[in-house]
Amino acid sequence: MKKVSLITLIIALCISAMAQEIKLPTPNTKGGMPLYDALANRQTNRQFSSKQLDEQQLSDLLWCANGINRKDGKRTAPSARNAQEIDIYVFNEKGVFLYIPKENVLKMIIPEDRRPEMSSRGGKMITSAPVTLLFVANYEKMDGFDDEAREFYGATDAGFVSQNVYLYCAANKLHTVVMGAIDRSNIMEFLKIKGKPILAQPVGYPEN
Amino acid sequence: MKKVSLITLIIALCISAMAQEIKLPTPNTKGGMPLYDALANRQTNRQFSSKQLDEQQLSDLLWCANGINRKDGKRTAPSARNAQEIDIYVFNEKGVFLYIPKENVLKMIIPEDRRPEMSSRGGKMITSAPVTLLFVANYEKMDGFDDEAREFYGATDAGFVSQNVYLYCAANKLHTVVMGAIDRSNIMEFLKIKGKPILAQPVGYPEN
Repeated sequence: MKKVSLITLIIALCISAMAQEIKLPTPNTKGGMPLYDALANRQTNRQFSSKQLDEQQLSDLLWCANGINRKDGKRTAPSARNAQEIDIYVFNEKGVFLYIPKENVLKMIIPEDRRPEMSSRGGKMITSAPVTLLFVANYEKMDGFDDEAREFYGATDAGFVSQNVYLYCAANKLHTVVMGAIDRSNIMEFLKIKGKPILAQPVGYPEN
Repeated sequence: MKKVSLITLIIALCISAMAQEIKLPTPNTKGGMPLYDALANRQTNRQFSSKQLDEQQLSDLLWCANGINRKDGKRTAPSARNAQEIDIYVFNEKGVFLYIPKENVLKMIIPEDRRPEMSSRGGKMITSAPVTLLFVANYEKMDGFDDEAREFYGATDAGFVSQNVYLYCAANKLHTVVMGAIDRSNIMEFLKIKGKPILAQPVGYPEN
């Protein structure tokens, strides 16, 4: 009886660990639409189908956005003093996940749909898209920056990342819109982070 | 004699007008390196050869950065509330020029090399590269924004543009580095603009 309990416990722990971390497939780091064509197609679209992105798309999207592109750990987007302070949180109907570029993993932060709480002004865009990325300037990675520099470079550095998302979407005929009108203090509270949410960016298929 | 003077005057005016405006060749808006390869090659490099970029390269670079990609005048980079407030100034040994996307023209602003005055900290990077782009948030295009929003969106919106420059360079094996350490008040003074210089970005061939 004791043995059975132990096995049950181990299984329960494994399931719990699995639920808290999603290992993404290896991202595509070659190919794609020619750059100038992607730039020619770069645009904002605010309507989305509810169709989900699959894990390969999510992996490609996140790698394009701010993945590791060199052996020394540097990224597809620059950052001030190489602080690499922009963290990407992935919001979907299942919860909120932190993208860990080194392990290519989504770490579950909150097992609930928090998209309706991201923006009182742009809520409909966020909840209609299958996934919304949130770019956060993680102040724990910005120790040497004064307040003004944190504000400034947090904003520029999120811009670099967001443009990569735009180009991924342009290259893959997906819709996206970058949003500055987000409820920063509310998001800070439920993410429990020391930092600033800069921009949100829903991504999805075109509406039917 | 009067006729000769008039002709001389007309010729002089034409030369003067030509000197103040450079019509760029039509940019390439199709083709280029596949997007994921460009992202895989995206990196910062601080050393430059003195070799000049030709006008086709400059045209392609500026179109990628923030050119018009749609009939309604929208751009390769997004902007808050579609303000399109990021102006690109081109600094080289001949002077300072404003990129006019609609006409694909470089308008001369100052007929002198002002690169040495752009940054007391990063001057060598700027003067060693054949061309440095300056991204300015033009406050005359941001009427409805309060001070905080101007600061914030000026920074994010320059980030979008700068990332396009990075990808153009990655796709064309050119070196580039984005710089926040620029002498903003000095630049404002000699450009005589109502706005904020956000980021500078030298571009050139790799060092020999």
